[in-house]
Amino acid sequence: MAKSMYLLWGSGSPPCWRLMITLEEKKLQGYKQKLLSFEKEEHKSKEVLEINPRGQLPTFKHGENIINESVGACLYLENQFKSQGNKLIPDSPAEQALMYQRMMEGLFFLEKMEFFVFYDFYAPEGERHDSALKRHKDNLVTELKLWESYLENVGLSTAHRKTRGESHTLR
Amino acid sequence: MAKSMYLLWGSGSPPCWRLMITLEEKKLQGYKQKLLSFEKEEHKSKEVLEINPRGQLPTFKHGENIINESVGACLYLENQFKSQGNKLIPDSPAEQALMYQRMMEGLFFLEKMEFFVFYDFYAPEGERHDSALKRHKDNLVTELKLWESYLENVGLSTAHRKTRGESHTLR
Repeated sequence: MAKSMYLLWGSGSPPCWRLMITLEEKKLQGYKQKLLSFEKEEHKSKEVLEINPRGQLPTFKHGENIINESVGACLYLENQFKSQGNKLIPDSPAEQALMYQRMMEGLFFLEKMEFFVFYDFYAPEGERHDSALKRHKDNLVTELKLWESYLENVGLSTAHRKTRGESHTLR
Repeated sequence: MAKSMYLLWGSGSPPCWRLMITLEEKKLQGYKQKLLSFEKEEHKSKEVLEINPRGQLPTFKHGENIINESVGACLYLENQFKSQGNKLIPDSPAEQALMYQRMMEGLFFLEKMEFFVFYDFYAPEGERHDSALKRHKDNLVTELKLWESYLENVGLSTAHRKTRGESHTLR
């Protein structure tokens, strides 16, 4: 099945990693792929634009189906290959809610990182302000703190589950 | 089931509409809800922040499950109430790929609209540039043209199906 898949990707791109990790998790190895260079603007090449008018990577086809948005592609692959590889959407309503919540929040995390890291790329020279750069940095720091708090809670809830598990074992 | 749901929403918010439309499509009427005012900064109120640390609307709970991101909430509701109301995720791989693709692209559409419409809100007075506003406008125009082309293709394929359907009827 993976042979009918075609991935155009760029190095260092978290959305590309997201899709490639999902392909591995679903045991969809052996797909056709091509590494393109952002520096050489290959993501704006004719080959990409024909599949993905946004000229972004990843650009992904499964047979004739085009699904370039990485989160959408992960959901599509999970739905199409439910029983293959690792199950990526949990059954429990609580875990499912948390997964969808963090999955979508992840997009804001990435965006806030990009606004800061690529500030000079997005703002032309005459439009740059230290105050704007500082604001983007502050927003990223706030975002990172939020994720740190999420991770702390994961740690706590894992510990909590472990404790509960142990107490069951001891009973 | 809808009685265990609680929605905090704001008027004029497409993400709120997205979730509210999904609730209607899934026949989940009768949920508890509260209309809050963006103007009065009620989306940054203690009640919201306790459920949604981002201080955004919609803020949504189903029992103890919190799912504030509207796209995530739509996917969660569809998965939890698959056999209720209208089916929102198509079975056919081609339609499913298209749905996920457009669903995720919709976020960029909204973002490009906000960058232009709320430019004065995001850029403090000393940081505003006509060139930046023009760029945001150009980006929005490009985005709108892309969606127009999507809609034209939908129109064509509907017309195509209709023609085929008619030819079947005439046979």
